[in-house]
Amino acid sequence: MGTLVGKVVIAQGGGPTAVINKSLVGAVLESRKFPQITKVYGAVNGVRGIVDERFLDLTMETTNNLEKVATTPGAALLSTRDKPDIAYCREIFHVLKAHDVRYFFYIGGNDSSDTVRIVNEEAEKANYEFRAIHIPKTVDNDLVLNDHTPGFGSAARFVAQAFMGANLDNRALPGVYIGVVMGRHAGFLTAASSLARKYEDDGPHLIYLPEHAFDIDGFIKDVKGVYDRFVRCMIAVSEGITDKDGTPILAKLVDNLETDAHGNIQLSGTGALGDLLAQRVKKELNIKRVRSDTFGYLQRSFLDCVSDVDAQEAREVGEKAAQFAIWDNVDGSIVIKRKANYSVDYELVKLEEIAAKTRTVPNSFYDVQKKNVTDKFYIYGRPLLGSGFPQPHRIRAPKVSKILNKS
Amino acid sequence: MGTLVGKVVIAQGGGPTAVINKSLVGAVLESRKFPQITKVYGAVNGVRGIVDERFLDLTMETTNNLEKVATTPGAALLSTRDKPDIAYCREIFHVLKAHDVRYFFYIGGNDSSDTVRIVNEEAEKANYEFRAIHIPKTVDNDLVLNDHTPGFGSAARFVAQAFMGANLDNRALPGVYIGVVMGRHAGFLTAASSLARKYEDDGPHLIYLPEHAFDIDGFIKDVKGVYDRFVRCMIAVSEGITDKDGTPILAKLVDNLETDAHGNIQLSGTGALGDLLAQRVKKELNIKRVRSDTFGYLQRSFLDCVSDVDAQEAREVGEKAAQFAIWDNVDGSIVIKRKANYSVDYELVKLEEIAAKTRTVPNSFYDVQKKNVTDKFYIYGRPLLGSGFPQPHRIRAPKVSKILNKS
Repeated sequence: MGTLVGKVVIAQGGGPTAVINKSLVGAVLESRKFPQITKVYGAVNGVRGIVDERFLDLTMETTNNLEKVATTPGAALLSTRDKPDIAYCREIFHVLKAHDVRYFFYIGGNDSSDTVRIVNEEAEKANYEFRAIHIPKTVDNDLVLNDHTPGFGSAARFVAQAFMGANLDNRALPGVYIGVVMGRHAGFLTAASSLARKYEDDGPHLIYLPEHAFDIDGFIKDVKGVYDRFVRCMIAVSEGITDKDGTPILAKLVDNLETDAHGNIQLSGTGALGDLLAQRVKKELNIKRVRSDTFGYLQRSFLDCVSDVDAQEAREVGEKAAQFAIWDNVDGSIVIKRKANYSVDYELVKLEEIAAKTRTVPNSFYDVQKKNVTDKFYIYGRPLLGSGFPQPHRIRAPKVSKILNKS
Repeated sequence: MGTLVGKVVIAQGGGPTAVINKSLVGAVLESRKFPQITKVYGAVNGVRGIVDERFLDLTMETTNNLEKVATTPGAALLSTRDKPDIAYCREIFHVLKAHDVRYFFYIGGNDSSDTVRIVNEEAEKANYEFRAIHIPKTVDNDLVLNDHTPGFGSAARFVAQAFMGANLDNRALPGVYIGVVMGRHAGFLTAASSLARKYEDDGPHLIYLPEHAFDIDGFIKDVKGVYDRFVRCMIAVSEGITDKDGTPILAKLVDNLETDAHGNIQLSGTGALGDLLAQRVKKELNIKRVRSDTFGYLQRSFLDCVSDVDAQEAREVGEKAAQFAIWDNVDGSIVIKRKANYSVDYELVKLEEIAAKTRTVPNSFYDVQKKNVTDKFYIYGRPLLGSGFPQPHRIRAPKVSKILNKS
């Protein structure tokens, strides 16, 4: 097979992350190095922009500005929630072919990898020489075969910093605090709430993941146990928790929920789950100060909360996409493999191995009895938060003897 | 008046902030320099700990650890929501006198300054030589006579970074986004949502402060106007918005709200206001993607989101408290005065000038027609965010000509 001359199209799909633009810029700058790449186009709004022929000529963007864009969270090419069917993918291929696009890089989660797979199959059927690479991205960390995915480390850092801050606040003004964290089927981000704990009584004291059935009575009992011990209780709950039949707890508590194109109910962008759990705790345990925060979109978009490890890896999966496709002339999905403690390497796997599959928190990371993460999860998660993680400190001064002794 | 020999007691009251421990450490280290200070005690849980004689001997804490504690958000001495009446203040004075305390520094908001005032009056009545200083602290920025208060700058930075991040997310996946910000009577923190805006269409596009009556029909109309123009709309709403009769909008929408010792309804720690506004927008404007986030406790506690300007000033108000009391032998409340653009100086005002008064957003900072802040507010607020404020960047590459031209 000779050198494949033609254009690159790159696009971003699904929910943005803190580092998705790192992958974009990595792939664009690496692609621009190759003489057989005639142009590098960015599709606006993901696959929707391809179908609508809305391309930006990234070959004409300055390297300086691209490097600045790489530091900005959110999808710089804008995103889409479209999940293309076969007819839609044919349309994508039709447009790509019309523009002499020979390389297609799509940054996204498992739905996006499925789109890449179908478009690539259309190219094969048409005998059109074409390379398609899926570049991983998801704060949920739910792509199979990956040790972890770009976007997760920075979101995990946000959640860990948020929980440590809330923990300090809760220590100063005690009560029950419930933090609701993103994650429909995978509880990695909720588990990350534990990663900033430093002192013995630091929260979260209880962690509930979507991988394990949530029982409201058991929950109340768990909270009581912690509260009796510490006179406060910090709880991390995944927005996606379900009962033993798989019904989302949110759906059991709230009527008229919005559903998306995939038939999933909307979990983010509402504080209802946290509020309802707080009400139950308040009522059943008769505790006055019960608060809930739903971290919402801040988890994936907050400016300037970035794991440097995550940022570097996001950059590299973009660069590797261009290298695999253009040097090696192969298709696939980039995966991150962990090598010892702590380094990574990148491999290419077949698109169908990633597409539309969901990875969940392994049992070795979670103690279902204690409702808490295991040491294995610490070893797994801590390096992903990156360097310079802020440390809380406490006063250790001795107590003064009482004089009046009235209390 | 000769040198007043005796102990210092320092305490922290009300909601913690990102920099309240800077003030604590500033006051402790400065106090330890003076030979007439026999001991520096920290009261645990604010005034509650004084009454209970729960003191830590901060004279025996290392400078190194104090400096580390200064970098930690949350009240290191723990806090209280107690609002002492005269009998309670007499009890405070009784304990302070029993421990030969001659200097009392209380870090807190306007309620705390009132406590300092009453305790000081008790000391005067008893002819007990005693210095009492209120050290300002509040994320709400609602202390009178101050240009701004320690804690506000860092909370404002959090809100600005959160809104810019959410704005980038909303640009990538358009819809209506409502961010609910802390502030019962003063809208400074909600107004700070504007301070990261860079590009012409950056949100928030609409800002609602508690200083101006909120009208739900007008709100819906405002949102429609922005949405018609940008096909998206970012909204910042203060948790404390009220109708024209002063009834909190939250109280009108939700039953059975918790009230505190002051008879105020609980505004924070619930996502209800945002959710209910989102439902109204969704229903009345028939917009599918409407999301709301309530920033909650993260605004005042998030680890590592600190304005360096705020941090330095928080340190200095602590140091100045010790200097005014010990060198100058005077009582009062430390206030921050702005000197040109941008430096500050500190003055001491009488306790009764601050106590139990609330400062609100001046009319010159807000355009009630446009539901947006004025340039004057930018000039006021931007320096308070501190240095190194993160900048978003956009791709500026040219559009590619369409070939198929189907859309």
